[in-house]
Amino acid sequence: MPTPARQRIAAVDLTPVAFKDLPLLNAVGVHEPHAIRTVVEVRTDEGLTGLGETYGDTAHLDRLRRAAELIVGTDAWDLNAVAGQVRAALAGDAGAGGHGMAGMVTNSSTADAVFSPFEVACLDIQGKATGLPVSTLLGGAVRDRVDYSAYLFYKWAGHPDAEPDSWGAALDPDGLVAQARRMIDEYGFSAIKLKGGVFPPDEEIAAIRALRQAFPEHPLRLDPNAAWTVPTSVRVGRELDGVLEYLEDPTPGIEGMAEVARQVSMPLATNMCVVSFADLDPGIRQRAVRVVLSDHHFWGGLRRSTLLAGICETFGVRLSMHSNSHLGISLAAMTHLAAATPNLNYACDTHWPWKSADEDVVKPGALTFEAGAVAVPTGPGLGVELDRDALGRLHEQYLECGIRDRDDTGYMKRVDPSYELKKPRW
Amino acid sequence: MPTPARQRIAAVDLTPVAFKDLPLLNAVGVHEPHAIRTVVEVRTDEGLTGLGETYGDTAHLDRLRRAAELIVGTDAWDLNAVAGQVRAALAGDAGAGGHGMAGMVTNSSTADAVFSPFEVACLDIQGKATGLPVSTLLGGAVRDRVDYSAYLFYKWAGHPDAEPDSWGAALDPDGLVAQARRMIDEYGFSAIKLKGGVFPPDEEIAAIRALRQAFPEHPLRLDPNAAWTVPTSVRVGRELDGVLEYLEDPTPGIEGMAEVARQVSMPLATNMCVVSFADLDPGIRQRAVRVVLSDHHFWGGLRRSTLLAGICETFGVRLSMHSNSHLGISLAAMTHLAAATPNLNYACDTHWPWKSADEDVVKPGALTFEAGAVAVPTGPGLGVELDRDALGRLHEQYLECGIRDRDDTGYMKRVDPSYELKKPRW
Ligand SMILES: [Mg+2]
Ligand SMILES: [Mg+2]
Repeated sequence: MPTPARQRIAAVDLTPVAFKDLPLLNAVGVHEPHAIRTVVEVRTDEGLTGLGETYGDTAHLDRLRRAAELIVGTDAWDLNAVAGQVRAALAGDAGAGGHGMAGMVTNSSTADAVFSPFEVACLDIQGKATGLPVSTLLGGAVRDRVDYSAYLFYKWAGHPDAEPDSWGAALDPDGLVAQARRMIDEYGFSAIKLKGGVFPPDEEIAAIRALRQAFPEHPLRLDPNAAWTVPTSVRVGRELDGVLEYLEDPTPGIEGMAEVARQVSMPLATNMCVVSFADLDPGIRQRAVRVVLSDHHFWGGLRRSTLLAGICETFGVRLSMHSNSHLGISLAAMTHLAAATPNLNYACDTHWPWKSADEDVVKPGALTFEAGAVAVPTGPGLGVELDRDALGRLHEQYLECGIRDRDDTGYMKRVDPSYELKKPRW
Repeated sequence: MPTPARQRIAAVDLTPVAFKDLPLLNAVGVHEPHAIRTVVEVRTDEGLTGLGETYGDTAHLDRLRRAAELIVGTDAWDLNAVAGQVRAALAGDAGAGGHGMAGMVTNSSTADAVFSPFEVACLDIQGKATGLPVSTLLGGAVRDRVDYSAYLFYKWAGHPDAEPDSWGAALDPDGLVAQARRMIDEYGFSAIKLKGGVFPPDEEIAAIRALRQAFPEHPLRLDPNAAWTVPTSVRVGRELDGVLEYLEDPTPGIEGMAEVARQVSMPLATNMCVVSFADLDPGIRQRAVRVVLSDHHFWGGLRRSTLLAGICETFGVRLSMHSNSHLGISLAAMTHLAAATPNLNYACDTHWPWKSADEDVVKPGALTFEAGAVAVPTGPGLGVELDRDALGRLHEQYLECGIRDRDDTGYMKRVDPSYELKKPRW
């Protein structure tokens, strides 16, 4: 073999980066001017490098650093050994902070979140060692293109004290319809998701109805990020019955979601109350959700996400995919995973359109949207190549921007001191 | 790469074989003089050959043949594609017969049972293409030796009209203790399983008590193969509470097992009522069992068995491993799977000691027992090599022995015309 069977991990580089983000509103505040991520490079003695991407928050970055030290010397093929070293690195870690989602998801498994980018990098190495795409290593692509959804946000015209961005404001139904129209024109998406929990429920119902009218054929989803009480969730769920393909996390917690599920016929989905393997038993027993949004960043990487997919199939739960603000490494990983997941039932979420086209850490060309879908890369591993200059630029931007922990609420409070975090709010 | 990334399946050979078996008694009759299996060889365009082993029953062999035709042309790396072709080959197949377990397990998934040996062969090919053992491809061995249990059977001295075999009769506690002593002396097993359901429960309780006295440190299990009613199961379960590590399939069906589970504190285990992914939801919801015995032969191969393991871990079900009469290809596959399954909680079952040492289809030396365990092969793939002469001999034996379907009950009836199949019997 030119590349020997074993791929001993020789070094791990972690590079925090920041890329420009837009003032997207959600139930806990608003996106800051920069989103932060960590780029993971795992190098082997044999000269192969695997890529991973994850959150950039301080506590997470600190955990990644501890784990990176311990995985040196393990074999990139031996994922159980890598996972064991990650667990060892986290011994005694209470798991506070670093969840990278502005408080919207805080009870996912810390070990799974820390393991994830290393696992993706190891699969990238395995693919490079064999000449196989990651989707093949995951069992084989059952589709050669992965559908994504148009992910709409209420947003300000621009960040305070800055020029309006090219998307402009979207603070009412008309603004969202215009946003959707541009996004669908540019990317070809055939499903639409609205991030809600921002305005009183009746305004968001009106927005969904406007989207339904403007896009009669597009499946629609609404995600208020647990901003509603159970009665509000039931009321909205009934009003939008038959309009939404699913209602995502209307209310906090498995018990609350189960109570809503008993009273509405529309499917409920989650990436907030069932976010780790420990949540599956209670979530499924209580029939809290009919759709789980997987996310390899907090479910422990791509193979653990295929386990989640297998569990969903076994227990009759449908499967969609969640997204955070992300770069090309994550888009590649999400695309390979989705391609190799037979029971993925919905177009995946992605924040991709909100990122500047000229900001990424992977060389352009490998990942492009056509008719709302990304073609599954067919090259070895993830099929993307690191752009080292771009990595340097985004790392400089990280150093300069000063953001070290995602804080949508703090940013909102700086803009509007009267803002109060409330969950549920309505 | 010397071995190209893709491994197109060029041909599949299926060879039914028979090997000598002993008159082992169980709840449905007695083992016939020969056990039958099918050896699967999958060849790729690149000249690699992968091995698999499965049941030899007519209906199963017929399904294997149909599937073998359709998987030619697929890529041995693309397990989803191979599985798809197997499903296509079985379209319209009602799934009757061919389950290879003398009626003891009849509702497992036909598609999973047919897919299994091809999947194992594909993993063997993947291992040979990369130089990696199958355990590494499955995520990495977490143990380098896999513990097996001493699998005791009530048995006749020999087959009718034949000389007594070297093990002689075991029809009472003393006979079983002697059998256990020899088996443990020869193999070093540190756990003991008794196949019950043969004699009235009080005799089997007495046997377990005799084993406990003779082997005070060995964990004990009893498996009557659903020969008992719920009240009998409850009575035995209570009498042997604290004596057995688990009681396996005392009574038929998920409902019956759940009823027993509510009344006894000892863990119940199964390879009869939860035997496919479709059984997991009801089995877990009804809390019918605390231990599932996995078996890659009917759970759809090694990767599907790791999915089962992940489900068990997620839902707090413990994991053991079931065995049928088998040859070395299956022992290798079981050992790799067990090695890569972190949450395997018990010593695995194996019929290995009941097979003549001079009958196998793999070349000697790769698999040996020491202190009750098999060292995980570290060579590429399964780490075993086909002995083509031996394969020919065992195929000749298959042709000559006349057994085409395992039929423990029919054989017992020919010996004892008054024998009646009854489930439950007591
Ligand atoms: Mg969500
Ligand atoms: Mg059994």
